[in-house]
Amino acid sequence: MAIAVEQFFLDPSYRGTLQRQLQERVTDAILAGRFRPGERLPSSRGLARHLGISRITVTLAYTDLVANDYLSSRGRSGYFVSDSAPRPPSFPIPVRTASTVDWTRAIGQRMPEPKILNRPEDWRGYRYPFIYGQTDARLFDHQNWRKCALQALGTRDFAALTEDSYGRDDPQLVDQIIRHILPRRGIVADPSEVLVTMGAQNALWMLAQVLLTQRRTAVMEFPCYPALREILEQSRCNTLDVAVDGQGLPPEDVPPDADVVFVTPSHHCPTSATMPVARRRALLERAEAHDFLIVEDDYEFELAFTNAPSPALKSLDRAGRVAYLGSFAKSLFPGLRLGYVVAPEPLIRELRALRSLTLRHIPGHIQRATAYFLAQGHYDAQVHKMARAYRERRAVTEIAIQTNGLTLAGASGFGGSSFWMQAPDGVQAATLADRLRARQVLIEPAGAFFGTGRDPETHYRLAYSSITVTDIPEGIRRIAEEGRALGHTAA
Amino acid sequence: MAIAVEQFFLDPSYRGTLQRQLQERVTDAILAGRFRPGERLPSSRGLARHLGISRITVTLAYTDLVANDYLSSRGRSGYFVSDSAPRPPSFPIPVRTASTVDWTRAIGQRMPEPKILNRPEDWRGYRYPFIYGQTDARLFDHQNWRKCALQALGTRDFAALTEDSYGRDDPQLVDQIIRHILPRRGIVADPSEVLVTMGAQNALWMLAQVLLTQRRTAVMEFPCYPALREILEQSRCNTLDVAVDGQGLPPEDVPPDADVVFVTPSHHCPTSATMPVARRRALLERAEAHDFLIVEDDYEFELAFTNAPSPALKSLDRAGRVAYLGSFAKSLFPGLRLGYVVAPEPLIRELRALRSLTLRHIPGHIQRATAYFLAQGHYDAQVHKMARAYRERRAVTEIAIQTNGLTLAGASGFGGSSFWMQAPDGVQAATLADRLRARQVLIEPAGAFFGTGRDPETHYRLAYSSITVTDIPEGIRRIAEEGRALGHTAA
Repeated sequence: MAIAVEQFFLDPSYRGTLQRQLQERVTDAILAGRFRPGERLPSSRGLARHLGISRITVTLAYTDLVANDYLSSRGRSGYFVSDSAPRPPSFPIPVRTASTVDWTRAIGQRMPEPKILNRPEDWRGYRYPFIYGQTDARLFDHQNWRKCALQALGTRDFAALTEDSYGRDDPQLVDQIIRHILPRRGIVADPSEVLVTMGAQNALWMLAQVLLTQRRTAVMEFPCYPALREILEQSRCNTLDVAVDGQGLPPEDVPPDADVVFVTPSHHCPTSATMPVARRRALLERAEAHDFLIVEDDYEFELAFTNAPSPALKSLDRAGRVAYLGSFAKSLFPGLRLGYVVAPEPLIRELRALRSLTLRHIPGHIQRATAYFLAQGHYDAQVHKMARAYRERRAVTEIAIQTNGLTLAGASGFGGSSFWMQAPDGVQAATLADRLRARQVLIEPAGAFFGTGRDPETHYRLAYSSITVTDIPEGIRRIAEEGRALGHTAA
Repeated sequence: MAIAVEQFFLDPSYRGTLQRQLQERVTDAILAGRFRPGERLPSSRGLARHLGISRITVTLAYTDLVANDYLSSRGRSGYFVSDSAPRPPSFPIPVRTASTVDWTRAIGQRMPEPKILNRPEDWRGYRYPFIYGQTDARLFDHQNWRKCALQALGTRDFAALTEDSYGRDDPQLVDQIIRHILPRRGIVADPSEVLVTMGAQNALWMLAQVLLTQRRTAVMEFPCYPALREILEQSRCNTLDVAVDGQGLPPEDVPPDADVVFVTPSHHCPTSATMPVARRRALLERAEAHDFLIVEDDYEFELAFTNAPSPALKSLDRAGRVAYLGSFAKSLFPGLRLGYVVAPEPLIRELRALRSLTLRHIPGHIQRATAYFLAQGHYDAQVHKMARAYRERRAVTEIAIQTNGLTLAGASGFGGSSFWMQAPDGVQAATLADRLRARQVLIEPAGAFFGTGRDPETHYRLAYSSITVTDIPEGIRRIAEEGRALGHTAA
């Protein structure tokens, strides 16, 4: 039996080549049982005429389908659905029914509702996106990433790509982290002291699981990275906030009964305050005196461009009290979900066992591609390029902030990718953000950094990692304008 | 100042092109501070002669280093270390010190020691690897996987690759799972009822966290998938084993106080028993009568080649009591770490919140590459090819088992990728495996399926997913030979 050309049509909204669309039409029809084994496909000439496309496109699609065993070619007789093509299922598809289970009761452990995002999903469509933590396509070295990823897809890396590696990490990535990244932070480590994680979120979560119990006390900075707050709340340990000042966390305010202290010394999240070396030493001494551990989140360390970067807290740690946490979210991209923990071996061993239990290992391809990106120097070039662009954007933003009379709430000697800002008197940051959104400007109200019920509703974060330098002045001007308008209404 | 050619050397053990090695030499030296900004590199002619390589290789390496801002080209004067090349760190590197922390005390929650692997890391070097769950390079469609991965690395998918997508999944992958995979299992689902996971391990772990507490009871099959046993032990719920027979789990043996029952109905892990439809209905009725939930692990469903596959338990579930779990570990490869859960929306919502907390989301690239592989029909062709090869291998293995008088411990009408075997009387499976290893044969003693202290030491798994059909008879012959030799010693 011959399949009629009328069974074929093209979807103008299809995102992909004509050849691929044609192939999908055929495979979908075979899998749905509409085209059956032995049936003849239309001639390439006839189908091309019917669809108004070139004959070579049809021929290429057919050839590929033969290679994949959907079609078979019988010389001059044409193309047929292959006898060994995948079959549709032989049983009828039931109708969907609603669950009658009482899920409120059935769910044993309720998770905290994830915080609502401060930015719309389509943020790339906005002209003035002062948003944090996403990748700037203008700065990311996509071409070399593709090259490295393609290399990691090669035959030589077949095992690294495909194997179930249970608890193991890619030795090439661990080697690169140890030789290439940690020395810049003043950290020396052995492979047994490094664990690769699914980004910083996964690292913080695992550290909280392994180090905390319901009888232990975790100290966090106030304000604080919202994801850490959620993780600690869910772990059910006791938590204590310690307010930061212009130099980050004051060590003398850490209570003696602390078990684990979570800090961001290079630049505090979100105020960007950098902890001076004297304070770092004092914090380590206090940890030794009161026997607590420290988790150092060194996020964005690559972006220390306003001054020479200070070495990590971990590099001053002689007693092995610090678990150090790095991430590729900012230097590469957050969708990669790649980070690492550097800590004494007994702790790494426990974290590895937890990782094995929860997800086994990090996908091999991601690890190997990153190892190549590091080994071939692209990481350094990338970080260098970003730092240069951010320095320029930061300078332009700073001038615009002054010119327009906006209020800085924190300053940093570090760099980074954002400013910590205060809304005008009587103006709620969330209201300001809402009003600005209608004017193509995105800013991030900072409530989540303070925690539920403790938001002064006065702060916002102004990030320059996803906005062009030329758009910054006008964006800031609009923020000031809306701020003044709202301030007048409030007064 | 000029950099002398003597600073360059080649490492014959380097795995990569000459050009890449040369680039790494230069970037390493710049980052270590050995080559400084403004210094002149050797001429391409001089360096090529010194290293005994072609001049074009040196020129290509230099050109790439210019593009990445490590070098600058000054026309006829040659190549220099760029003034804006990345700088080495400015502080001295400390020496490594041992941790003085008492980690036995500091670790709050100890994780179960992951089970020791039953196979050597270098299993690919063995001639007769009857090992389970790894990818066969002869069967995997590596070429089309590369094509799809490369497509997912393109500019059009930049956001899918790079973005922090918080709790969201790739809509294209979810769509493919719903339209392309679930219908073959008789399952109809809405996107809100699907969650992408880091493989089956992650799915089972999350389900245990959300559904179980210390006051609830989980039922598992006996023997049972070892990773599930570890997950349930660590979750601290009550656990009960129910022994399977030749038709899988007997529903009437599930105690009425069960809260969650973990089953592998399509083919029981590890005995490969298939649960008949009547039992499936009985299990669902019992779940309704005693108000328990069911987690259906439908692993390897793609390999149902000996009979037409029966629809999933989930497809018979009118009350919404079943959480269905699928994985791409067998059909694609385990290093991908990709799986999914299909369950009622209130449960998916909790699982999603837990996933956000523990690791945020699954890497975008992996999701999109898989979506393309599915959409373009490669997945079906792949599964088809595997099933065909496995069918042949299974038949040859079965004949060799009979010819050599080995003892089958379980039979299956399903297919799959392994046989469940019993060692000869008086012979420990682990001893047999050890002896065989010296003879290039790898089999998997099955102690982990029974749990600590309950291993009869009599069973092993014989997988044919990683051995060529031509090597099977000789491999089986050696197993029989060693078994007889050990049996004589035991007698």
